Amino acid sequence: MRGAFSPWYAEKPFSKLPGKRHMANQRSRIITLLTDFGIHDAYTGIMKGVIAGINPHANIIDLCHMIPPQDVFRGAYILYTSYQYFPKGTIHIAVIDPGVGSERNILCAECKGHLFLAPDNGLLSFILQKEKTKTITRVTNTKFFLPGQSNTFHGRDIFAPVAAHLSLGILPDQLGRKINQFRQIDMPNPVFAKENRRINGTILSIDHFGNLITNITEKDIDNLETTTNNLILTVDNEKIKGLSNTYADVKTGMPLMFIGSAGFLEISVNQGNAKKHFRAKQGHKVYLDA
Amino acid sequence: MRGAFSPWYAEKPFSKLPGKRHMANQRSRIITLLTDFGIHDAYTGIMKGVIAGINPHANIIDLCHMIPPQDVFRGAYILYTSYQYFPKGTIHIAVIDPGVGSERNILCAECKGHLFLAPDNGLLSFILQKEKTKTITRVTNTKFFLPGQSNTFHGRDIFAPVAAHLSLGILPDQLGRKINQFRQIDMPNPVFAKENRRINGTILSIDHFGNLITNITEKDIDNLETTTNNLILTVDNEKIKGLSNTYADVKTGMPLMFIGSAGFLEISVNQGNAKKHFRAKQGHKVYLDA
Amino acid sequence: MRGAFSPWYAEKPFSKLPGKRHMANQRSRIITLLTDFGIHDAYTGIMKGVIAGINPHANIIDLCHMIPPQDVFRGAYILYTSYQYFPKGTIHIAVIDPGVGSERNILCAECKGHLFLAPDNGLLSFILQKEKTKTITRVTNTKFFLPGQSNTFHGRDIFAPVAAHLSLGILPDQLGRKINQFRQIDMPNPVFAKENRRINGTILSIDHFGNLITNITEKDIDNLETTTNNLILTVDNEKIKGLSNTYADVKTGMPLMFIGSAGFLEISVNQGNAKKHFRAKQGHKVYLDA
Repeated sequence: MRGAFSPWYAEKPFSKLPGKRHMANQRSRIITLLTDFGIHDAYTGIMKGVIAGINPHANIIDLCHMIPPQDVFRGAYILYTSYQYFPKGTIHIAVIDPGVGSERNILCAECKGHLFLAPDNGLLSFILQKEKTKTITRVTNTKFFLPGQSNTFHGRDIFAPVAAHLSLGILPDQLGRKINQFRQIDMPNPVFAKENRRINGTILSIDHFGNLITNITEKDIDNLETTTNNLILTVDNEKIKGLSNTYADVKTGMPLMFIGSAGFLEISVNQGNAKKHFRAKQGHKVYLDA
Repeated sequence: MRGAFSPWYAEKPFSKLPGKRHMANQRSRIITLLTDFGIHDAYTGIMKGVIAGINPHANIIDLCHMIPPQDVFRGAYILYTSYQYFPKGTIHIAVIDPGVGSERNILCAECKGHLFLAPDNGLLSFILQKEKTKTITRVTNTKFFLPGQSNTFHGRDIFAPVAAHLSLGILPDQLGRKINQFRQIDMPNPVFAKENRRINGTILSIDHFGNLITNITEKDIDNLETTTNNLILTVDNEKIKGLSNTYADVKTGMPLMFIGSAGFLEISVNQGNAKKHFRAKQGHKVYLDA
Repeated sequence: MRGAFSPWYAEKPFSKLPGKRHMANQRSRIITLLTDFGIHDAYTGIMKGVIAGINPHANIIDLCHMIPPQDVFRGAYILYTSYQYFPKGTIHIAVIDPGVGSERNILCAECKGHLFLAPDNGLLSFILQKEKTKTITRVTNTKFFLPGQSNTFHGRDIFAPVAAHLSLGILPDQLGRKINQFRQIDMPNPVFAKENRRINGTILSIDHFGNLITNITEKDIDNLETTTNNLILTVDNEKIKGLSNTYADVKTGMPLMFIGSAGFLEISVNQGNAKKHFRAKQGHKVYLDA
């Protein structure tokens, strides 16, 4: 992945425990929030109130609250492409949770020095599939929940207080038992075809600017073994020739492709909107030919 | 109210005054913001700049900025269902203020250990009507305002600096004189009918997910003296039978009713949108029969 | 400008260097963010993660993220009318950057005790044209960038880490060389006509409430040398007579003009929406007659 990221800044341990080196002593005070709660209610504000009541020193950062209601896939994508830019020890809350109040589990996953709290519905699929080493705990210890929790707002009653306690230094194994199985969603992987001369890709995400982000990585492109000038991408019935470096490489209003900031092949229109240009949707297919 | 909330976490006094126990020594550094300012301007950012200039240690938390312009009722509802999840000593700024610059008063209310700053237009109605004990001050001391304040942006010129000073430990009685009268808006209370076999209710709020939140509480339902399986709710011409616990109790796409996270009877569609399903609006009537 | 603002609160130096008084020892921990990134992605959250990883004590405040994509003019206006409400030493990041990844420069400007980081595309025009004294540095020192930066997300890879390092106390001259030339956008200045009996003005901005903010200042109006009751403003084909103090000066639904909170002549409809009333757009002309 271009711009693959190993934080060059010093880790900032939140609390230093003498003696053994342990996850807890890398804990940051940062708690991120990713939800489908939107911005028309006070639901996310309430979660922040609960956190601040438990740990007044928590540093709460919004990732995004505009995940379309119950779009677990988009939540998983956003979380995967964001978490690595936070310092180790960060606690990430993700609540896109159509099964709230049902028997679904709540997970606390520890992966690459980050902690993730999410319902067991595939929200962590991207992260847990990409990373080999991880420890997953089923969150059951009601001691760290708000008392008398509701069946419909676990963000407030479970996720927020549990994250706040984690930020104070409790360990994941205080939350419940380790588990080995968890739900995953199908990740659309790029598929090589035509004797490795073509990649069948999928649009993973469309951003605010209308950029279309595919699932094709720079490494996939290397495997096509051609010069980047020869690449031809087919989107709908239109073709884009050659890999650009940035928007300004083409004229205003012209489409282009380049390796985007998340490390994936991205389709744009210089100073325009590729979503409108191609009438594209999340899940649409694209073809990259050598 | 289900999930009625008495914070179980320790109070975090901001400043400890020796001797007498007093509101001031329970002051938190938290200031919440509730406005109808939207997100397309920098108005809320400017308020935060003013606060940070006065108290760099203030912890500013957004409740919601998408209250429809001048919808005092919705602001009052959001504030009432949110504030109790913040620690005592929190200072809540609410600026939905069609009368800005006119003769309307600005209030500082102290209630259940929280401080509220709001125009005297009914924004605090829900809170002040539900809670017996409160102290209300008319905010007049210009010493705590920005100098040369405008007539149209009291959020920046009065509310923000006054809240910042309160977070530093000044007392409400330094802001002006105590008053006993303040404006209230009509709160639509549920009405019992048919010899206590029916409750006439009203939709108070519709959230981002399209959930319809009524003014009927669990206690009201208890007063119907029937089993929850027998309850029949009429919305528009459709009927919902039985009180559910959570979304997953009914099939995908089916409507249901349950006690929501704010303690009120709520109408939902499992993985759908009740607002669209029922074409409902804030203020619509519903009937709950035993 | 009405409400012209000289902060009356004490400056809060972030770090005190002994000996000489210097910009660095006035540094606050506040970093503001102004972008056209919208709220549907995690781009701004990622920037905050990068900042928090470098300076965990940074106090990050959102100015606005809903600048229309690539609308440099609106970004310049919002920044100019906001920054002065933050304490001196604040670091302002502004990323409305259609030229990202091209040869355009990145600037660090020091002006009135504030630091600004922005692409060299006119975003700082309002501020730098209004203020005489300023020092501008071209940001080139990759030591303070994320390693392996992308060509399309300099907000994450350059602006965020550079701002974080500035908030830790590095000096602008560590970022690169001083420059004297920078790009400016045309600012529509009000023009006097008809022997100083008329001002030809322009709508600079339209806010969330539909208020139309012109480029005419109170000082311009003073130069018409008439009483404010005699002023007649022509918008489209409609006329507004007399300068009001605040909304409540006219009946509900009636248009009015007044000096707004940014110090400019503003057009409103009491409890209504002037944008809809006048079908106005940014850039439209208005005429103010004495």
